[in-house]
Amino acid sequence: MNSPAQPSRQMLWLNGCFLPLEKAAVSPLDRGFLYGDGLFETMRAENGRILFLKEHTERLQSSMRELRIKADPFPPLDVTIGKLLHLNSLSQGIATVKIIVTRGDCSGPGLPMNISGPQRPTRCITAQKYSPPSPFTYEKGWKLHVFGEGYAPPLAMHKSLNYLYHLTARQSALDAGADEALLLDPYGNVTETSAGSLLLRTEDTWWTPANPHQLPGITLHRAIRFMENLGRKVEYKTAGIEKLTEAKTIWILNSLMLVMPVYALGNCPVEDLAANDASHLRNALIHLE
Amino acid sequence: MNSPAQPSRQMLWLNGCFLPLEKAAVSPLDRGFLYGDGLFETMRAENGRILFLKEHTERLQSSMRELRIKADPFPPLDVTIGKLLHLNSLSQGIATVKIIVTRGDCSGPGLPMNISGPQRPTRCITAQKYSPPSPFTYEKGWKLHVFGEGYAPPLAMHKSLNYLYHLTARQSALDAGADEALLLDPYGNVTETSAGSLLLRTEDTWWTPANPHQLPGITLHRAIRFMENLGRKVEYKTAGIEKLTEAKTIWILNSLMLVMPVYALGNCPVEDLAANDASHLRNALIHLE
Amino acid sequence: MNSPAQPSRQMLWLNGCFLPLEKAAVSPLDRGFLYGDGLFETMRAENGRILFLKEHTERLQSSMRELRIKADPFPPLDVTIGKLLHLNSLSQGIATVKIIVTRGDCSGPGLPMNISGPQRPTRCITAQKYSPPSPFTYEKGWKLHVFGEGYAPPLAMHKSLNYLYHLTARQSALDAGADEALLLDPYGNVTETSAGSLLLRTEDTWWTPANPHQLPGITLHRAIRFMENLGRKVEYKTAGIEKLTEAKTIWILNSLMLVMPVYALGNCPVEDLAANDASHLRNALIHLE
Amino acid sequence: MNSPAQPSRQMLWLNGCFLPLEKAAVSPLDRGFLYGDGLFETMRAENGRILFLKEHTERLQSSMRELRIKADPFPPLDVTIGKLLHLNSLSQGIATVKIIVTRGDCSGPGLPMNISGPQRPTRCITAQKYSPPSPFTYEKGWKLHVFGEGYAPPLAMHKSLNYLYHLTARQSALDAGADEALLLDPYGNVTETSAGSLLLRTEDTWWTPANPHQLPGITLHRAIRFMENLGRKVEYKTAGIEKLTEAKTIWILNSLMLVMPVYALGNCPVEDLAANDASHLRNALIHLE
Repeated sequence: MNSPAQPSRQMLWLNGCFLPLEKAAVSPLDRGFLYGDGLFETMRAENGRILFLKEHTERLQSSMRELRIKADPFPPLDVTIGKLLHLNSLSQGIATVKIIVTRGDCSGPGLPMNISGPQRPTRCITAQKYSPPSPFTYEKGWKLHVFGEGYAPPLAMHKSLNYLYHLTARQSALDAGADEALLLDPYGNVTETSAGSLLLRTEDTWWTPANPHQLPGITLHRAIRFMENLGRKVEYKTAGIEKLTEAKTIWILNSLMLVMPVYALGNCPVEDLAANDASHLRNALIHLE
Repeated sequence: MNSPAQPSRQMLWLNGCFLPLEKAAVSPLDRGFLYGDGLFETMRAENGRILFLKEHTERLQSSMRELRIKADPFPPLDVTIGKLLHLNSLSQGIATVKIIVTRGDCSGPGLPMNISGPQRPTRCITAQKYSPPSPFTYEKGWKLHVFGEGYAPPLAMHKSLNYLYHLTARQSALDAGADEALLLDPYGNVTETSAGSLLLRTEDTWWTPANPHQLPGITLHRAIRFMENLGRKVEYKTAGIEKLTEAKTIWILNSLMLVMPVYALGNCPVEDLAANDASHLRNALIHLE
Repeated sequence: MNSPAQPSRQMLWLNGCFLPLEKAAVSPLDRGFLYGDGLFETMRAENGRILFLKEHTERLQSSMRELRIKADPFPPLDVTIGKLLHLNSLSQGIATVKIIVTRGDCSGPGLPMNISGPQRPTRCITAQKYSPPSPFTYEKGWKLHVFGEGYAPPLAMHKSLNYLYHLTARQSALDAGADEALLLDPYGNVTETSAGSLLLRTEDTWWTPANPHQLPGITLHRAIRFMENLGRKVEYKTAGIEKLTEAKTIWILNSLMLVMPVYALGNCPVEDLAANDASHLRNALIHLE
Repeated sequence: MNSPAQPSRQMLWLNGCFLPLEKAAVSPLDRGFLYGDGLFETMRAENGRILFLKEHTERLQSSMRELRIKADPFPPLDVTIGKLLHLNSLSQGIATVKIIVTRGDCSGPGLPMNISGPQRPTRCITAQKYSPPSPFTYEKGWKLHVFGEGYAPPLAMHKSLNYLYHLTARQSALDAGADEALLLDPYGNVTETSAGSLLLRTEDTWWTPANPHQLPGITLHRAIRFMENLGRKVEYKTAGIEKLTEAKTIWILNSLMLVMPVYALGNCPVEDLAANDASHLRNALIHLE
């Protein structure tokens, strides 16, 4: 099926099978499609090795339990993803691997989640080439735009398929000439960015927002553990955005680009990108597992 | 393949074609599936006639403009839906018709919405038999559960595919032995229910919550217009849920079941279901168009 | 003027002196008068004994430290208040004793609190006869009105002289034919009443609202300790008011009337006043110290 | 009483009489003192002329009506204040004039406002020398500190004696090395400063926060009228503080210092103080009445 003459054809894994993209079909009645009734994880593969696979799997399963999505267990994910990367010629270099689980096509019409009856969840894994930001971009940093039209959604602690708010926020940042959007909770407190967690330094203290309206960031927690091993304590603080204007350093963290310094919050320049520290942390996150 | 001996096989309309469900495929890379990046409308067909089709179409297009989803125009919807109902043997009786539009499979990976470039939106229409609540249920009414875990989502004014919060709220009501969930905004004010609008009476005044965090309800607006033609003014009021405990009558409205009285808000009984008025209004909504 | 034939003339203690009310003068430039820049405590005296005097004094001093009001220490309060009660012929029976401390008349005009410079705080103690609710009222209970116009003030954790919001809420309850007002935080969660704390029972669990926007109630904490000694655990819960509609029992607690059951929340009846338990707790609070 | 040999002794007006400060006594049972149950206005006198007296009087009476404080009418205020200024040797130069009205000493103990019964409100007027900021300070501007501990109080639309939150905010700004505090509503939106209104310019648009949780500013409204007479429209906008980081110019307005430009919001410099325009507006506010 995977003809060596067509190396660019995209393969994915769907409900137990490796398939070319154009043969991979989701039902229009899949609840993931109808209602965003599902979850996903995005991971970085580095020469075939998945960064933080265990944490991503655990977060996924924890949210599945809470949302009561009862999927068959995945086959061993390192093997499956390894094969998927191979089929996509991505065993070398950097790739984005995405796992999606939905509640599937529950029999009846209507809203009920069919919690007690049988579910036929959809499970899907995709892999695509990932081009990280250039060294120049990492050094220059990103401009952060405060997204003021709407607040962190009520399910922000789950990485659900309800992602339209995050897309809208990111788009608004791009429209404003910035790179990424800062999200606030309904009460004006800082949560995270549209696709990352925040790690900040004020005076000599490193901290991260303590807020229930945000995703538990896997890269963030790895970074905190790494910094604490170096003797730098990281605090959790509830913070209005005025706290950000007082920060000396602002970093955005996620599983793909790992650590990106911020050079400006809207029109307000950030004092110190701490670009060397960020570079050091990126290397640590990739290599020290 | 579509054997005439199986008239009950479900047909749907997808991107210009009528297809049996099992041949209707959405790409796992469709942004509707990946991110809930799309919209839907649910309508009631009564013997082949779609109730409030114009209003539903206008609301859909208004949200598409705001979310910058650039889909080809649908073919004339009354004809297309009429044919779809016919193919599903639903030209008589009551049916649910659902229109879905997503941003489709935008070329690149990642979050950007590709606002300026070409989009390949997905357009889909489904039709299924709808069994309305029995006369007994309409007379007895529903029990309403106040959903306190989380608040109306930031895109609540659009009927987007980000519907997991609404599902969670509905499920929570069912778990609590109630029929439907009342949704609050982040500040404790009443918005709507998980699948309907609210119309209430306090003393002799009919009113509906004025709140930006809710869908502009089509059945609600029809009902308001009808009541005002009868000389009953309907007010828009910002209301904490304490205002509901003072209400004499609470109705839930949506396009499918039209008008459902509430007999209790949690443990607090509602004084007057106004079941006759509700029945009268249901008939008017079906017939008077 | 100060005839010995009028023993009922009200005496109070002001900045070290016992004075008749009509000789007791506060400067119109006292910051307590100009800005409500001060604190108070209200206590119940039972035959000359002050209930919970230590806790009231500690709460007062804790708030003084936080607001940086630097008053001279009071003379021994039990002796001073004992004498004040005697001068007012209140050594027998029940009385209300009130302590007030303000930042006084700081030298300069304008807003600054003169934190570092000298302050001349005003200290005042008053005593008045207190007529507790009748046994009949305790048995019948109170009607609670949810105050929806405005939210718990930002300094709600201090018993400051900024009490106008509480007065407005109480008045609104009286206007609505109720006895007391339930206060919400800005996000729609329950805090306390205009002059008391809440203790509730849902199913078989006793609980009290966990909310930063409320006073740390002294009678409440005494009651919780008493109940826990009896083996009844009391939980702290964040609660929207929908949680109150599910409560079987609602009690209001404060230092004067001690424990008052609630028979209705707006139009919604409360199932069980637990009037015997409330009576038992009242006795315990008075006698078991 | 008012010996010409002691011109510096402070005189004030209290309930119909001119008195030296040390003879002016407020009862410790005055509800203004006990609960902050009252209102005030602060005005600027310029060589004996009270700026915006009519607007201040109207705002005071509007709040009295809403809070149901029933005071006797004041004697003609221009005459009374004129005499008070004269008695304090303030007929020349600049002075602060303050009017205070409280609900007085209502007969009974306890919270009720005695809305229907007789009230004995306290009315007081004070006058003190006012030293405006120096020309250098006006040119340099003020540094604004965002006050994040607590939100605008529920009665923020009335200039009530409940002013402790404003004092706390101002003190916090001074502690942080700034001059004034910016206040947020409970949802993170900008309202006003601890003692002034905000007028801002973003791109070429002048605007002011539209927020129910703030005082209707008299100097602000005068300034808006003046600017609109010059053809510069001023918009009302709901604004999170991120909107302030995008503002080119930020001004603080109040009745005493009139117009003060802001040079920094926390660490974030403000682009353009528009100091000449501010100076022009100050002159207009003083002279053009």
